[in-house]
Amino acid sequence: MVDIATRVYNHAWKIDPIVRSVIDTDFYKLLMAQTIYRRHRDAAVTFGVTNRTTRVRLADIIDPGELREQLDHVRTLRLSRGESTWLRGNTFYGRRQMFSSDFMEWFEEFRFPEYELTQRDGQYELTFHGPWIETTMWEIPALSILNELRSRGVTRGMGKFELQVLYARAMTRVWEKIERLRKLPGLRISDFGTRRRHGFLWQDWCVQAMIEGLGPAFSGTSNCLIAMRREVEAIGTNAHELPMVYTALADGDEAQRRAPYEVLADWQQDYQGNLLIILPDTYGTTNFLKHAPDWIAGWTGIRIDSVDPIVGGEQAIRWWESRGQDPKNKLTIFSDGLDIDVIERLHAHFNGRTRISYGWGTLLTNDFRGMAPDGLLDPISVVCKVISADGRPAVKLSDNPTKATGPAEEVDHYRRLFEVQEQVAQPVLV
Amino acid sequence: MVDIATRVYNHAWKIDPIVRSVIDTDFYKLLMAQTIYRRHRDAAVTFGVTNRTTRVRLADIIDPGELREQLDHVRTLRLSRGESTWLRGNTFYGRRQMFSSDFMEWFEEFRFPEYELTQRDGQYELTFHGPWIETTMWEIPALSILNELRSRGVTRGMGKFELQVLYARAMTRVWEKIERLRKLPGLRISDFGTRRRHGFLWQDWCVQAMIEGLGPAFSGTSNCLIAMRREVEAIGTNAHELPMVYTALADGDEAQRRAPYEVLADWQQDYQGNLLIILPDTYGTTNFLKHAPDWIAGWTGIRIDSVDPIVGGEQAIRWWESRGQDPKNKLTIFSDGLDIDVIERLHAHFNGRTRISYGWGTLLTNDFRGMAPDGLLDPISVVCKVISADGRPAVKLSDNPTKATGPAEEVDHYRRLFEVQEQVAQPVLV
Repeated sequence: MVDIATRVYNHAWKIDPIVRSVIDTDFYKLLMAQTIYRRHRDAAVTFGVTNRTTRVRLADIIDPGELREQLDHVRTLRLSRGESTWLRGNTFYGRRQMFSSDFMEWFEEFRFPEYELTQRDGQYELTFHGPWIETTMWEIPALSILNELRSRGVTRGMGKFELQVLYARAMTRVWEKIERLRKLPGLRISDFGTRRRHGFLWQDWCVQAMIEGLGPAFSGTSNCLIAMRREVEAIGTNAHELPMVYTALADGDEAQRRAPYEVLADWQQDYQGNLLIILPDTYGTTNFLKHAPDWIAGWTGIRIDSVDPIVGGEQAIRWWESRGQDPKNKLTIFSDGLDIDVIERLHAHFNGRTRISYGWGTLLTNDFRGMAPDGLLDPISVVCKVISADGRPAVKLSDNPTKATGPAEEVDHYRRLFEVQEQVAQPVLV
Repeated sequence: MVDIATRVYNHAWKIDPIVRSVIDTDFYKLLMAQTIYRRHRDAAVTFGVTNRTTRVRLADIIDPGELREQLDHVRTLRLSRGESTWLRGNTFYGRRQMFSSDFMEWFEEFRFPEYELTQRDGQYELTFHGPWIETTMWEIPALSILNELRSRGVTRGMGKFELQVLYARAMTRVWEKIERLRKLPGLRISDFGTRRRHGFLWQDWCVQAMIEGLGPAFSGTSNCLIAMRREVEAIGTNAHELPMVYTALADGDEAQRRAPYEVLADWQQDYQGNLLIILPDTYGTTNFLKHAPDWIAGWTGIRIDSVDPIVGGEQAIRWWESRGQDPKNKLTIFSDGLDIDVIERLHAHFNGRTRISYGWGTLLTNDFRGMAPDGLLDPISVVCKVISADGRPAVKLSDNPTKATGPAEEVDHYRRLFEVQEQVAQPVLV
């Protein structure tokens, strides 16, 4: 068992770099990478990091030299032999050889591409230009580096026992949540907290606590490295970047309207079973479901993301019923801003009406709220999103206008294109 | 830094015996031993263990084989060279060569004497017969073994993370107390928790947390081994066993009434300065102070033990004033049933009126209240007291009749002898 407090006290990045492996990333990046590799590997896609918690001035807190050092370290990584063997030989979602040989050969040679780092208004502007198949890989490492460098900046000044008590408090908090989770009948929950984690060692601790505390109710972690080391399932499906890039690349309104469904058509050529999860909110859930072809209603489930989760779950149930599907056989995945209270509420509301799974992120792996003065360890909402594809701006509307990304005129264009009505803005906490 | 949870998970008594050194004991035992060695080494003194928390049936919880194994292990210990060097060469209470050569020569050869172990009514009857200088040494090891075996019985069944969270909770609790202690002006506090500790590693952690958290406000620990290893002061003066044995050995009422003062007369031949602390409650504080010769009022301070500490402190202040002493120059040591609330209250009441020092025991090193089902880790009140000296029963009255020890008829005799009035019984919590 790792003594986190001591390790943090002794942190020297050479023994504890923030990102310590090419697969210290979310599983869905690899699934998406394979789909991208097969169809759009050369699309020029730019990703950029945005800190939505603007009151936290990351450029004032994180030393640019240290940031570069950590980013440069990621560029030295390559897939290790053991990691490759695991990806090639392991069973994912009940299936062997999830990743084809040609993809694996590419992945074995993969190196992270260059990054661009500047500062503006107390924030870092961190962007990645290049082929989609390469730039996509930066999302998770970039985010976990920014988050952990911020934590380290705070923990660096602390005494040994102060640190031990910090982690003691955080452990107690996580465990109390786990004790409450234990009481939920038929629970299935997984860790989605890589990008926002307080630190790698801490995420690894949280996963182990979930393993011991929840047993089979814990379905696994999105983090491939931890899944491999702790011998649990790697969990994840797909994300907004697919419809964002597909739609940006599409020519003309009609093709753009079709693009989000093209994503799913491609996806079901590559994957099956529990990987067939709809993520409907990129350009508004309502319109997406309304115009969805019937074969999509046959998919395994849906991931409710930016909409209020009770509203989104009810909407999905009504939609399945309207398409002659039984919601009881369908999987509904909640993954946005979850914490124990929300999970309990959702479980009380939906359990028995649909199969449920929870992807618990920030408030599993970074609930240090109130544990440092001035909220210096409170999690922040930093994201890494597609900015453009082949020179065209990429747009996300989502069900919460606070989360919309893209140039204002393009956002307006997309809102007309996807017939998005008045949306209710909700604060983005984590 | 020791990862307590892992060590506890892996507990094998060969690497973690409960008592790991002859000096894993309270400093006052060594001071008293030297006084005993010089004057009464051959008095036949029997000590016996009593569990005052009768609802906790120790004989049902602790395996007699394991208990014997731990007690037998103590009998294999002898003073190590490094320990001897420390005792001979270290400065205690500002003085070098606190222990004389002849005493040290005896101590270097010392082995713990035999013990007698039987069971009755779900409790162990653990007694030590022999020369006072030998039996006195059993008090602290016997108590810490019983307490830690009880803890180990509970922690043995726990999972790794459950254990880690247990210690996380306990650490958080201690640290929150330390954070409150920090706010007390002019605080001087020491660890008196060896006998009642949850475990050795835990006491060691608590001491280190006090060192980091309180700085110079932490005056040291009663535990010699920890004081040596952590390079802090060894703290302690004397205990009830001295007047108990002196009084039992005295012939006739008059000699018995004088005996508690004889203890102090001997003591001040051996020690000086901050070691000149009166412990007045063995046969009732009021009578002790009333009849005390004036030279005792010239001593450095007083330890308030079994009486309500506000009452006891006020009584001491009035007494010093009546003897022409300035209480502001006197040291008042509180050491009974302390916890953060009590300390804060006492500090608010007495700070500035007398010098204050706190000897914090059970609720520093064993505050696991509520941390296991059915209070299985809650501290209990187990003591090891003198039963007889040269065949005569030993008696303690104390200021709290709940704490009185000795045969009933002898207690009555002593109450008359020492003119003890009606006393207020107070529950003994820890």
